[in-house]
Amino acid sequence: ISGCCGNPKTQLIRLWEFGSSDRIRFIFPAKMGLALTLLSFFIFLKEPFQDLSSHSVWAILTVVVVFEMTIGSTLRKGFNRFLGTVLAAGLALAVAQISILTGDYEEVIIIGAIFTVGFLTNFLKLYPTMRPYEYGFRVFLITFCFIVVSGYKTGRFFQTAINRSILICIGAIVALAVNVFIYPIWAGEDLHALIVNNFDNVAASIEGCVDAYLACIEYKRIPSDILTYEPSDDPLYNGYRSAVESMTQEKELLGFAIWEPPHGRYKIVKYPWKSFIKVSGALRHCAFAVMALHGCILSEIQAPPKSRLIFRSELQNIGIESAKVLRAIGDRIEKMKQLGVGDILSSVNKAAEELQDKIDRRSYIFVNSDKWEIGGRQQDGEDGGSSRRGRGGGNEGDSDFNNNHFAIKSQSEAVLDLRYVEFEIHSGESSESMSPGFVESKETSNETTKPTYHMHTAINAQSRIYESASELSLSTFASLLIEFVARLSNLVDCFEELCKIAQFQEP
Amino acid sequence: ISGCCGNPKTQLIRLWEFGSSDRIRFIFPAKMGLALTLLSFFIFLKEPFQDLSSHSVWAILTVVVVFEMTIGSTLRKGFNRFLGTVLAAGLALAVAQISILTGDYEEVIIIGAIFTVGFLTNFLKLYPTMRPYEYGFRVFLITFCFIVVSGYKTGRFFQTAINRSILICIGAIVALAVNVFIYPIWAGEDLHALIVNNFDNVAASIEGCVDAYLACIEYKRIPSDILTYEPSDDPLYNGYRSAVESMTQEKELLGFAIWEPPHGRYKIVKYPWKSFIKVSGALRHCAFAVMALHGCILSEIQAPPKSRLIFRSELQNIGIESAKVLRAIGDRIEKMKQLGVGDILSSVNKAAEELQDKIDRRSYIFVNSDKWEIGGRQQDGEDGGSSRRGRGGGNEGDSDFNNNHFAIKSQSEAVLDLRYVEFEIHSGESSESMSPGFVESKETSNETTKPTYHMHTAINAQSRIYESASELSLSTFASLLIEFVARLSNLVDCFEELCKIAQFQEP
Repeated sequence: ISGCCGNPKTQLIRLWEFGSSDRIRFIFPAKMGLALTLLSFFIFLKEPFQDLSSHSVWAILTVVVVFEMTIGSTLRKGFNRFLGTVLAAGLALAVAQISILTGDYEEVIIIGAIFTVGFLTNFLKLYPTMRPYEYGFRVFLITFCFIVVSGYKTGRFFQTAINRSILICIGAIVALAVNVFIYPIWAGEDLHALIVNNFDNVAASIEGCVDAYLACIEYKRIPSDILTYEPSDDPLYNGYRSAVESMTQEKELLGFAIWEPPHGRYKIVKYPWKSFIKVSGALRHCAFAVMALHGCILSEIQAPPKSRLIFRSELQNIGIESAKVLRAIGDRIEKMKQLGVGDILSSVNKAAEELQDKIDRRSYIFVNSDKWEIGGRQQDGEDGGSSRRGRGGGNEGDSDFNNNHFAIKSQSEAVLDLRYVEFEIHSGESSESMSPGFVESKETSNETTKPTYHMHTAINAQSRIYESASELSLSTFASLLIEFVARLSNLVDCFEELCKIAQFQEP
Repeated sequence: ISGCCGNPKTQLIRLWEFGSSDRIRFIFPAKMGLALTLLSFFIFLKEPFQDLSSHSVWAILTVVVVFEMTIGSTLRKGFNRFLGTVLAAGLALAVAQISILTGDYEEVIIIGAIFTVGFLTNFLKLYPTMRPYEYGFRVFLITFCFIVVSGYKTGRFFQTAINRSILICIGAIVALAVNVFIYPIWAGEDLHALIVNNFDNVAASIEGCVDAYLACIEYKRIPSDILTYEPSDDPLYNGYRSAVESMTQEKELLGFAIWEPPHGRYKIVKYPWKSFIKVSGALRHCAFAVMALHGCILSEIQAPPKSRLIFRSELQNIGIESAKVLRAIGDRIEKMKQLGVGDILSSVNKAAEELQDKIDRRSYIFVNSDKWEIGGRQQDGEDGGSSRRGRGGGNEGDSDFNNNHFAIKSQSEAVLDLRYVEFEIHSGESSESMSPGFVESKETSNETTKPTYHMHTAINAQSRIYESASELSLSTFASLLIEFVARLSNLVDCFEELCKIAQFQEP
């Protein structure tokens, strides 16, 4: 209630804008107001309904308590309230009978019963499978206490129970009627829209990720929100985050949607909302791959922009094609149609194959040959790596090969120096050939390694590690992208299962 | 309430075991029962408190409604209820005065007021910043309707309001006293324990991930729960998932913890729980890196076991050292102590450096030289890759280099064939040297590529892609592991910030 005190006029404008952005925000309160108004006519009833009229507040309270935004949640709450009230009334009457029969011990029995019922309901509602009925337990306890206590005061246990039940029923019926017949808001539809929306978000995110990677976009300083997985205004991050985050909301909507009867486009009794959730889970699995790709952009270890350009068209192709697949599936889910004939994944798989092919042909870009141990042993023969190797495989063969290696390394270096023709850049702006082809971490990494943001480590030692890792980081990005494509096929499987279960239309 | 009907005896045993596993599950219901019992003595009050006694049910209902597990949530609900009741009572009395003054239009004013208040409260509570006060709005509406309606019936608006307020206050005070003074359950402590627990979970997960990768553990069939990010019984998966999943619970506990006064070890007024959440967020960022590492194990693209062994000690070292760092930070958070002198990250950074060093020296393992385009053009001169290259860099130089390349490739191949000495395996069990060193995807990938689980793609084409990617997948795992180490430093930064803000003890 506090925390929003400012200029009242701007506050009002902001509230108005908030309501206008989604008309449900005006409709839902109006529906609730209507239900309350209908029931408040009860209080003006005259004889012979005097008795009902004097307890009419219970019908109104039922509306306030049970009336929820969506039909599913109203039904669930109504059911909880109904069952809780009926069972509590039954038990309360039984306790009342016993307490009256025992006479002198009436007070003791009432107090004992209140403690016991209070203990048991609160214990049971902690049990995991009882979680959805938490509200029912609360209503049970309220009703039980109410009937026992006010019955004791008035001596009219039975009357109290009956009156209250009738009024609660009336309240529940009015709440339900208003909720269902006037501009119904279905939890199932919300769930459907949420899932479809996530497909678009992840599609935008994967496309954006690949584009940002190719444009060598770097974060000067990574927003600390991203580093602690808080909401941030980075669109790329928001795309996959929304798909990951919506899990709680989906679970909640599912809990309501399963209570809703067949309606509109959802004509199957016991509509398979769980299969929708499963598809959304498979999408989430893909979103985690996008998250890993985004991690490559956030990483301090950055591939030189020039090597990224070599794979430009292949990477971009995968980005575009996989976004297409995601949008296509999202669209089919929205329209509740099956996939057409032909493999939806064929283009994206072809794109992945092309990338893999190019990697096969150009994988030397990823590696830095000047430290290869092939012939370099004379210089660093004493270091940990080679002595460890000695332990495992035995040293006897080592010295025999040393000279060979050295000779070979020389030839190999000659090879490497000639390879600069491969590094002609495809983009127009910088077509100078770079030499010496392989080893250019020193020149480029200073541009690409971002200012390191940790203070307590020996920065020099660390940046040296990250620097030499930069070439391989491109291959990491490519591998993760291929992994993303592989995960798409699982998503398509889940979608096809959904098509069958939910009886989507033939295309 | 349904869904748990079986043998009643086994049900009872299961309930007992559920309760015994955490004694809070017995203590909390007992506390609630006690509070109810204390208040039910009110109903036996005789004169001069007859009036209070006859409405005593309100005190009992307040307990049922306000009494929550933790002190923070009880305080928050109590505050909501208090403010909602007071404001509603004030407004209801004002409406009652107006309706009485207008005389003839009394009914119209009452009905209009109920609609207006119902509309406004339900509209306002949809506003995002009002979310935590949702309960307050509901109480406001209930109280308002109750006072207006029963005041109209009895004509005693003021009396109704006063009586109800006194009894609600008594109920709230008893609920709070029982909650605070008898075996208090603090939300802050729960939050603290949850965060500490997540550190252990992620530590176990990263260790397990590295071990599983080195043991070449493969999923015969990946559990579909993991593919849809559902709970599963895979311990590796559960470790990081719990850290990712606990976000909702942390947010909820934070909402309660900020209501709690200083207590026990948390002596600062306005204890900085938000900084705890921030550390937990940084841990979550690390957990996502573990998730990506686990993705390498789940992937269809698997590095040959023999090359993994080459990096065995380095990878394992990072796994052990980073788990140590996580456990150390978790332990410090639990004990609320600062880190000692010396860099906690020095060993893990050294391990990462060693891995990077070895990668530099052995990166030829990751690449498959037999498809390199260095001289292979005569065979595949017409393929897409080379024609695209031609466009960008100009064709004129191409033919000049062709012969050179071919000659060099021959020499290069000779080099590669001699390199098999590098492949001596460190582990005792298989120390035979493998030749031809580089190209062994055909023999090993059949063992390592798992049965592909998608049916609608041309399996042959796809598995060929994945097969040739297998060598690079080891480098992906290594890069992601180094990225995980980099993320640890952000975690340490967040932790050190927390140390300052929360005034952790010097070590």
